[in-house]
Amino acid sequence: ASEVDWDVEAAEKGGYPHYMLKEIYEQPWVLENTLGGRLHEEEANVELGLDLDLARFDRVHVIACGTAFYAGWVGKYLIEELARLPVEVDVASEYRYRNPVVDERTLAVVISQSGETIDTLEALREAKRRGAASLGVINVKGSSITRETDATLYIHAGPEIGVASTKAYVAMLAAMEMLAIALGRARGTLDAGTARRLLGELRKLPRLVEETLERRPIVAHVAEKYHQATDFLFLGRHVQSPTAYEGALKLKEISYIHAEAYPAGEMKHGPIALIDPRLPVVVLATQGPLYEKTLSNIQEVAARGGRVIALASDGDEGIRQHAEDVIYVPEVHPLLAPIVSVVPLQLLAYETAVLLGRDVDQPRNLAKSVTVE
Amino acid sequence: ASEVDWDVEAAEKGGYPHYMLKEIYEQPWVLENTLGGRLHEEEANVELGLDLDLARFDRVHVIACGTAFYAGWVGKYLIEELARLPVEVDVASEYRYRNPVVDERTLAVVISQSGETIDTLEALREAKRRGAASLGVINVKGSSITRETDATLYIHAGPEIGVASTKAYVAMLAAMEMLAIALGRARGTLDAGTARRLLGELRKLPRLVEETLERRPIVAHVAEKYHQATDFLFLGRHVQSPTAYEGALKLKEISYIHAEAYPAGEMKHGPIALIDPRLPVVVLATQGPLYEKTLSNIQEVAARGGRVIALASDGDEGIRQHAEDVIYVPEVHPLLAPIVSVVPLQLLAYETAVLLGRDVDQPRNLAKSVTVE
Repeated sequence: ASEVDWDVEAAEKGGYPHYMLKEIYEQPWVLENTLGGRLHEEEANVELGLDLDLARFDRVHVIACGTAFYAGWVGKYLIEELARLPVEVDVASEYRYRNPVVDERTLAVVISQSGETIDTLEALREAKRRGAASLGVINVKGSSITRETDATLYIHAGPEIGVASTKAYVAMLAAMEMLAIALGRARGTLDAGTARRLLGELRKLPRLVEETLERRPIVAHVAEKYHQATDFLFLGRHVQSPTAYEGALKLKEISYIHAEAYPAGEMKHGPIALIDPRLPVVVLATQGPLYEKTLSNIQEVAARGGRVIALASDGDEGIRQHAEDVIYVPEVHPLLAPIVSVVPLQLLAYETAVLLGRDVDQPRNLAKSVTVE
Repeated sequence: ASEVDWDVEAAEKGGYPHYMLKEIYEQPWVLENTLGGRLHEEEANVELGLDLDLARFDRVHVIACGTAFYAGWVGKYLIEELARLPVEVDVASEYRYRNPVVDERTLAVVISQSGETIDTLEALREAKRRGAASLGVINVKGSSITRETDATLYIHAGPEIGVASTKAYVAMLAAMEMLAIALGRARGTLDAGTARRLLGELRKLPRLVEETLERRPIVAHVAEKYHQATDFLFLGRHVQSPTAYEGALKLKEISYIHAEAYPAGEMKHGPIALIDPRLPVVVLATQGPLYEKTLSNIQEVAARGGRVIALASDGDEGIRQHAEDVIYVPEVHPLLAPIVSVVPLQLLAYETAVLLGRDVDQPRNLAKSVTVE
């Protein structure tokens, strides 16, 4: 398509054995691209160039499928926290058919790497028919969705070839962080000081993701140890709930291991029945207000013979007492933790799939963009 | 507790090998109890005796854990459809900590069988601190939650002893149906004719559930055939999405099989990678506006070698072409389908757990009511 402004040749593997691994390693510069020129500390704001009056909405509907849905779910927490707007987040195939309550003060945010996801496109049309304004969070320029939204926030991740999305996900997360800041500033719910602090933290992300990639040997060790497990559980709370879901989805997509995620607080309401010594449980236990609650969940899993792989912040030595394995990540503002934390989960899926001899870039049954219903 | 108005003796197994099976068979009369005296065809309304002005809300937050959460999720579809109110549904452990947007026009609906679920109680307190009015959908009289809500809609399911909730779930669903009708009538979004039709359909439920219970031999046959599977997938759309999740949860809780659910439209965005000839896939394919879409999902699963167990409406002979096994249920209004459809899924979990020699009434790791965090 002539509207795509990158060169397919540029997307070659560049020395990596798989596109997916190359794309995982591209994430620091992808984040530079996504954030590039958009962070303005002087005004304590972001500049997204959106032709939308962000102050006029009283409700946000976030609509997406698959990995993009998890980015949207993180966005829900961010927008509610920073902009005090109620946010509903839906998978597009449900939104289309559920008779949502929409009016002209509703902003529909649709997220799609390809901009061609058919359910997302149809959900967008449904929201517009009901009077919503619309914003696309999209990677591919000139794609179908961008032609129908009132405004587009491009994530500038470059071409993504691996069927399992990685760099587009972190770019979507960065875009949702910026959107939440923009909404918060427009509505007056986010003060300049807090905004500047978040902008400073966003600027650190490329370096922190770079640093996280250096932890690959630890992740490879964990993959080696657990790759013959038939099932995995992933747990997290708050913004790390969607991270848990995305980690499970990556593993499921490319290794075909049955990985499932839950908000950690729901564990006692069912999935705890699955815990036994053959079940590895990955727990997102980075620093933040819910750290202690998450630590309790780890202890509950361990007490029932489950094998805990904790993802923890650098410096948290205490967690070693409770977890069989620990993958450390650099500490970052709790609202930005998903961007750093997903990286080892992508690597865990990758290393596991390679050990199992899977076709990492072309997993069975899956298409890169789902353009049929 | 002296406030509990039923006799523990009455809860004995009464000839059934397990409390759970007894409680599954009690569901027709439980529904009579839940609905009893509350359906008023003359006024085309329900009489819930709630001391709340239902017309004054502009937003509903439904909060619950586990099985009650899935009842709340069905409630979201119902309230949006019949009362045109935006509804957010949250697991309580997330709601408590996510800084939700609440004001005095928000109705917080908290659902709990025991009325003692600690996360739900704390989430209720959080919503009230922020100014919400509150309604409990509760089984146990005089329980902690009922002492703190502005009003309580008792589900009248009688004592539930089996750790895996069954009869309380169908009673919660019936309560949410009635609440949606009450809200729709109070807001003027539900006309008398449609309301009367729904009341008529609700009146049929006890008989239809009775009739569904007679299908147990087919379900037992399916359980016999698939009980050695290590993993299951459950799919549904719209109000049958939560039914799929509840079916998966039941199986997980008492058989320890790793059962996971997805909205059927999301299948292509990840879980389809799991499909292989060892994976039974239970698809909720009852009659309704999304029947054709669901049938496409069945064909996709079958085309990839997955083994489809379809749950279909009586008379749908065509579905036999696409599904390896079919469990038929009586046809009912699509918005009421979850109440009838969950029954064979409860029986499937029960029969499977018995075949596997599990302790059905006391599954490992689980407590009947989760009163610690």
